[in-house]
Parts: sequence; structure tokens; C-alpha cells
Amino acid sequence: MKVTARPVPDPSLTGPPVTERLDGLLLRRLAARMGFAPLRYALGRSTFAAPAGPPVATLRFRDRRALFGLLLDPEVHFGDAYADGRIEIEGDLVAAVEAAYRALESAGRPSLLAWLGTWRRHSLPRARTNVHRHYDLGNDFYALWLDRQLLYTCAYFESPEMSLDEAQVAKMDHVCRKLGLRPGETVVEAGCGWGALALHMARGYGVRVRAYNLSQEQLAWARERARREGLDGRVEFAEGDYRTIRDRCDVFVSVGMLEHVGRRSYGELGRVIARSLDRNRGRGLLHFIGRDRPRPLNAWIRRRIFPGAYAPALTEVGQRVLEPVGLSVVDVENLREHYALTLRHWRQRYERAAAEGRVGFDERFRRTWQLYLAGSEAAFRTGSLQLFQVVFAPGGSGAAPWTRRGLYSEDMGLSWNALKS
Amino acid sequence: MKVTARPVPDPSLTGPPVTERLDGLLLRRLAARMGFAPLRYALGRSTFAAPAGPPVATLRFRDRRALFGLLLDPEVHFGDAYADGRIEIEGDLVAAVEAAYRALESAGRPSLLAWLGTWRRHSLPRARTNVHRHYDLGNDFYALWLDRQLLYTCAYFESPEMSLDEAQVAKMDHVCRKLGLRPGETVVEAGCGWGALALHMARGYGVRVRAYNLSQEQLAWARERARREGLDGRVEFAEGDYRTIRDRCDVFVSVGMLEHVGRRSYGELGRVIARSLDRNRGRGLLHFIGRDRPRPLNAWIRRRIFPGAYAPALTEVGQRVLEPVGLSVVDVENLREHYALTLRHWRQRYERAAAEGRVGFDERFRRTWQLYLAGSEAAFRTGSLQLFQVVFAPGGSGAAPWTRRGLYSEDMGLSWNALKS
Repeated sequence: MKVTARPVPDPSLTGPPVTERLDGLLLRRLAARMGFAPLRYALGRSTFAAPAGPPVATLRFRDRRALFGLLLDPEVHFGDAYADGRIEIEGDLVAAVEAAYRALESAGRPSLLAWLGTWRRHSLPRARTNVHRHYDLGNDFYALWLDRQLLYTCAYFESPEMSLDEAQVAKMDHVCRKLGLRPGETVVEAGCGWGALALHMARGYGVRVRAYNLSQEQLAWARERARREGLDGRVEFAEGDYRTIRDRCDVFVSVGMLEHVGRRSYGELGRVIARSLDRNRGRGLLHFIGRDRPRPLNAWIRRRIFPGAYAPALTEVGQRVLEPVGLSVVDVENLREHYALTLRHWRQRYERAAAEGRVGFDERFRRTWQLYLAGSEAAFRTGSLQLFQVVFAPGGSGAAPWTRRGLYSEDMGLSWNALKS
Repeated sequence: MKVTARPVPDPSLTGPPVTERLDGLLLRRLAARMGFAPLRYALGRSTFAAPAGPPVATLRFRDRRALFGLLLDPEVHFGDAYADGRIEIEGDLVAAVEAAYRALESAGRPSLLAWLGTWRRHSLPRARTNVHRHYDLGNDFYALWLDRQLLYTCAYFESPEMSLDEAQVAKMDHVCRKLGLRPGETVVEAGCGWGALALHMARGYGVRVRAYNLSQEQLAWARERARREGLDGRVEFAEGDYRTIRDRCDVFVSVGMLEHVGRRSYGELGRVIARSLDRNRGRGLLHFIGRDRPRPLNAWIRRRIFPGAYAPALTEVGQRVLEPVGLSVVDVENLREHYALTLRHWRQRYERAAAEGRVGFDERFRRTWQLYLAGSEAAFRTGSLQLFQVVFAPGGSGAAPWTRRGLYSEDMGLSWNALKS
């Protein structure tokens, strides 16, 4: 038996070692999986830049496991690996996610499993759990990065220079004007958050509001604020979701709740709205994150951030919520870019709080939320997500405004009915 | 065999003769068929008033045949019997049709046959015939009752007191502002009627327009007007429908054409729009008669007035035209009551012309058009029909305005992009 010593390879002749070359191939494979978004990928000394123009950022993998995860399912594993610090973004986080979104949207198709997930039943206990997981993280946490009044929905920037606080007030007025609130009318709000809109309506428009919510923490905060401002006689905060609504009212409003209703329950929501609204005077508004066409929400967001959430296409809301109960669409506005800007404000405040050590929780949580805010901004910027405000009224009723001019003039009262023949 | 003389009935004991009692029963049956709309029905000396409150008008039948026709199929036979003078309306024609619409809408369900009809193929020759039958009745006929510029679509009344001429100009400006036209841009218009909008855009907004139409009479008129106004260098009127469009453009606009496209061809229309529009700067507007939910058009209208026409629900336009080609909804406005008012203007002018013997054609034609105009007004007033303006843009593009304020301010340029971050 002869033992031969293996020759020592001369690096100048053989190039990088096998593992490095393998990593390079894997990075190249990943770049393809990511639709050749303009990104650079790096693992150890191996790098690969997609040939799509200058890369907007570099994704640096801390280990091969993170890389394998992404190859398997980029939508889910990118988020988790980022949260765990196994991926770092060198460059602009939003720009990086934006590039990835653009590429993935046009490449991938949602799996059947993802579709099935959107058809899950949202029982009241499940709805309660879903809400609790996200909204009961503590009012202090949200106060760190939301506006002064804690509105956790898209703001309305009359111009992009407006502050976030101003833009959230402008949003509430925009909604109230779209609804043409008149003193003495009754309003039902489904999903009221920390109660800012309900209180704003009662204070500024002289209406009586019953506002529903499933989050205990938010309700306690809202009730306390109503008492402090002496509005508890005109605004009632009730525990329950839309299914528990038995009121008759002039106006039905829901801002940022539809995303949590679940597609399977849209018909029920429609029936609740229709039976609540006065047949002649009634009108309503749904404000929700939507899509240009039906598609499940990003898998990581559904898993880590908003369990059970779904952003519907306008046509789904039409077909399942409004049409079956004879509600007529009066006005639709798409505020997509306003949500991108809202999210930029939130993220800047969040990052500042994180840098100053005020966020609390652990590093994994902090990075999860950082990515969620950046990713959402990217989704609205690229058009992967939309923000729709839909005004509706019972078909054939005379409740719609003659024109929308009143939304944009000082003398807003004019728009509703006053001008009618 | 015994022959007994029949006793002569004493009218004071037996009531009206058999035929009269039979007519009474038939009228009662018809009232039920019409969903007990608040109408009175009369044939000879028999009458029946629906127990729905004071009748708004009386339908007087000239013979039993007209009554049988209505019992069989009120939607079709009412129109024909009215045109033939076998039914007279005593009272307000619009109010009578309005009452009937309200009742029939909630009672009846469209037949399978009616649904099948909406799925008919609209080949180019058939489209040409359909267009010819309605729009080539002679420019003189339309000039009798349309506005000065011959716009045969819903006007936009900034206030209900506006004249029809003003409101049609306001409509064109409303459309141009929604589209944010900028000097030097290129516009494609599908279905341009007598060309008023195309010329208005070129004259007032400095754009170049190519406008398509299938009606020879309208094209000749439009070309002549362009020459007369020295706009023939900037507006080209082309013979053809949307399928022949091969242009690339910044803006796609279509006012009152979708109703004639046929549901089966919506996908093709979407593909034409998507391939025409610039991916980044492009945007478009569809202005059309629609519905709160899918439903075939009134059978008589389809048979006698608009062969092959269909008024889609918003969701049908979303699902078949926009979603498959990735177009994103930016803005929807429902101008239902503006169309009711437009139709009232048209009908008043038409009635005046008819009374003065200027309409021409025969009595049947004149009554057909009278009913069509009155019935359409009623349909918009009751909410059986809607008028939607839908603004859209390629998904994720930056072409949408920051807010809609510019639509309602003097300095309209501000709304488009100037305010963007």
C-alpha cells in the first residue's frame, strides 16, 4: 500500500477555495430567486451583485444557514434572519426592501397554501387573540413613535411638508368631511384604536359616537381620555368587534379595521353595515390597506406582525361587502403615497427611540419592528400595497354630496345637500 | 225538454259587467307584477290603484292587448306600448317611470337569457352596426336637444343652477384636471363622439390628441370643426374602435364608450389601455354608466335604443379591465345625480322641440325617445343606474396627484407632482 502526499494547491492557480466558490454560486442563485433586484449579496469573502444596475444596498449574511433559508422562501426567512441579526443591510434599509419588493412582486405567485390561509375563519376569540398580539404591546411602546393622539393608520398630508401630528388631524377632518357629519347625528365606529377619531368627531362636528374595539389596553386609554376631555357623555367606547354592533345610525365609519376582518367574514360585515345605516340619510366610509388585485399579504408580516390580516383588492370589498347588501360606491380615493410618508415618519421616530434606548424589549423584537416599518414603507412606495378610502351609501339614497368641492374649501357645509336641487 | 228564459240581471244588484270585472282583476294582477308601485292603472271604466300611498300617475291602457303584454313582460312591453300610444301616462312621466323602477328593481331578478345576452361577442362589424343604429340618426336630430358642443354624456354641474352648456364645459375641465394634462403630452381618446373633449384638451391644455370613433357622421362633423378652429394639426380624428389603437401615449381617456364595449371584450380593452400607457408617466380615465351590482340593462333599452349595451358594476371594470393588466385605481367619483339632471335638461329641450314640430321622424319614434329620456332620468334618480369616473395609473407609478385639491382650486397645476416630496 502506497501513501502519496497530496500536493498543496497554489492559490494563485486554483482561485478561491471550494466553499467560497460554492457560496458564490449560492449567492448567484439567490439573486435569481430575488428576480435580479439591484442588490449585492455577501457571505464571508464571496459576493455577487445582480446585473440589474448599481446595487442600492448589500445584504450581508452572517452564516450559510440564513442564506439557505432565503433560497427556500425569501418572503418568510428574510424577515426572521434580519430580526436575528443573521442578515445585515449595508446601505438604505427601505431602498433595499423596495428593490426586493419590486422584483418579487413581478416574479412570484402566491402559493395555494397562502391563499387557503386567507380563508381561515375569524371567530371572535381568534379575532381577540390576533388583536391582542399586536395592539396590546403597551400604550407606551406606541406612544414612542406614533403622533400625539396615537393614530395608527395612514395620515393625510395636505402637503408633504406637514408634520405627522398635523397630518393625522387633517386625516380625521378629511374623513369627517367625506362623511358630511352634521350636528346631532349618530355615528358608529368599528375598530377605534385609541379613540382619537371618535373624540374628534364628537368635539368638532357635534355628533354622538359609539366606538367599538377588542383591545383592552386601547379601550382603557380611550375611556380615560374621553373623561378627561368631558366627552364621555357623547362618545361611548364599547368592547366588542363589528359583529356585536346592534346600533341604528346615520354614519358608519371604520378606519384601519377591515385588514383584520378576514375575507370570509366580509359578507357579515356588509350585513352589519347595511342594517345599521338609515336607508335614506345613511352613509359610511371604509379606510383600509388594499391591493391592486387579490393577493395574500406578505407571509412574514402575517406570521410575525399581523396574524390573520389580509389587504383586499377594491373589487373584493365591492363584491363581498357592498354589493350583496345594495350599498352604492360614492367616492374612492387612493392615498398610497400618504401611507409611505406616514411610515417614514413613524420609522424615523422609532429609530430615534431605539438609538436612545427607549424602545425596550429585546434586540430581536426591535429589529423585527424596524424591518416591519421599513418594509411597509417600501410596499406602499412600490405599489405593492394601496390605501383606499371608500365612501358609500344605501343605493338610490340622496345622502351623497352634490360635488366633492366641500372637501377642499373652508366652507365645507356647502358640499352636503345644501347645493342640491 | 224545457227551455227556461234567463233572468235579465239587475245592474244595481250585480255590479259592473263581467268584462269590466275581469279588467279590474287584470289591473290588480299587473299592480302586483309591478311590485305595487304607487301607480293607478286604468282600462276603459276599470281602474285599480296600488295600495302603496297616493298614486304618482295613472297608466291608461287603450286596449286589453297592451295590458296583456305588460302582464307578460313589463320591462319590454311597457316601452313598446307607450311608443305605439297604447298606453298613456296621466301625470308626470318621469315620476311614473321612477315609481315603476323602484318597485321592479327590488322585485324582479334578471333572467338567464338576459344574462346570456350580455355575453354576446362584439365583433367590429357588429359594433359598427350598433353604433350606426344609435349615433347616426343625424347630427341635426342631436343638435335639437344636446348642448351647443354636442356632448352626449353626463355633464358636471358645479352647482345645479349651471346651464347645460356650462356644465358640459365644466365636465370636460373636470376630466382634464383629473388627468392632470400637461402641455406637450399625448392623449388617446377612445370613442370621441362629435369631438368636443378632444378639441377642448388640445385648445385648453396644449396636448396632442388622437381620437377614435366608429360613427361616420360624428367623425365628419368633428373633422370639419377641427379644421374650422385650426386644431387639425393637434387633433387627429381616426376611424376605428379601441381595438385598432396602436399608439403609445401619456394619457388614455374614454367618456361614455365602455357601455358599448360588451363585457366579453373588457379584457381586450384593458390590454389596449395597458400597452398604450407609459409605465411611469401614464394615467387614464374611464367615464361610464354603471351599476351598484352586475345586472343586464333594461330589456327595452337594449332592444330599442342601445343594442348590445351593458352598464357594468365597478367591480366588473376592476376585475376584467384593470386588475389583469396591473392598473391601479387612483380615484372614483359617482356622478349619478349629475346624470339625472343632465337628462332632465335634454328631455326639456327635446319636449320643446317635439312640441314645436322640429323633431321629425314619426310619432312612434318621438314617443320612443321621449320615454327613453324620461326613463333614463328616472333610472339615475332611483339609483338603478350610476355614473362612474374612474382614474387609474400603472401600478406603483408616480403619476397620481398628491391630493385632489387641484380639482377644486383655480391654480390646478399645483395638484400634480409639484407638491410631491
